[in-house]
Amino acid sequence: MTERGGPAARAVLQQCLQARLQVRPAEEPSEEPSKEPAEAQFVQIDRGMVIYICFFKGATDDMLPKMVSTLLNVRLCESDSGKTVSVSELPGSLLIVPQATLGGKAKGRAMQYHDNVGKEDGRRLYGAFVSLCEDQLAVVKHGTYGNRQVLKLDTNGPYTHLMDF
Amino acid sequence: MTERGGPAARAVLQQCLQARLQVRPAEEPSEEPSKEPAEAQFVQIDRGMVIYICFFKGATDDMLPKMVSTLLNVRLCESDSGKTVSVSELPGSLLIVPQATLGGKAKGRAMQYHDNVGKEDGRRLYGAFVSLCEDQLAVVKHGTYGNRQVLKLDTNGPYTHLMDF
Repeated sequence: MTERGGPAARAVLQQCLQARLQVRPAEEPSEEPSKEPAEAQFVQIDRGMVIYICFFKGATDDMLPKMVSTLLNVRLCESDSGKTVSVSELPGSLLIVPQATLGGKAKGRAMQYHDNVGKEDGRRLYGAFVSLCEDQLAVVKHGTYGNRQVLKLDTNGPYTHLMDF
Repeated sequence: MTERGGPAARAVLQQCLQARLQVRPAEEPSEEPSKEPAEAQFVQIDRGMVIYICFFKGATDDMLPKMVSTLLNVRLCESDSGKTVSVSELPGSLLIVPQATLGGKAKGRAMQYHDNVGKEDGRRLYGAFVSLCEDQLAVVKHGTYGNRQVLKLDTNGPYTHLMDF
């Protein structure tokens, strides 16, 4: 919670059998016919969890360790035997998707994002969040902050959860 | 908002290029060898929006028309020209996914769902919500309340939004 009363960060969590995310878009064809434009680049995880993450004004680096610990240790995943376990216990992989749209509030028919953290702070917090996850889980993939998050998801039931911090 | 101060319903919205949802699981093989078990059944939409929906205690039928009108008319989708438009304006299809997990709150490492509406009320509200969407949009598909929501999603950026009612 921040001084303005709202959350400092918001995460939406979905379980997946496989998830694929674009981390670099394809290059536009060049005017030099000899130069092949680079293809789009993707990262992929198999069984695990997708974390869509958004930071608000008032978010601090100090809050990240507890946030990461909660997200990786709360029991949201289904084991082979049908038991509910954390992504760390599964053990599963993690795909982190920066998702500024999660900070949106409807005003009339338009969405506004006034509470979202600024771009530079958001990029730093996102990078630190990814690093902390990488410290705790063997397989962590993540999207590029500020890019379009071209995502493909295959689930056996996403079990979508929301967690505000 | 309800008397307890929390929301009466929660929707998570994602844009898709294609989405496929299981509406009936495959039948278990029968002991009669002559009888072929029925295959799983799916619904599918192409370009449009996925609505994950959860009702809380205190949700009423009265709130549904305004809720549906908001969800179908708020500008969350990207048109071919890059303009932000509503799913009705796109015009896009709708896939409605009942998602009780959206009502979860972490207590320690476990998720609790104490604020979720009861099963019978939830089923009725969900059915009424689907009917109202069907009245307003040409292509509306939906999951079966209470089932596992086996979902496959292909996006050009999910633009995940949260809306509480």
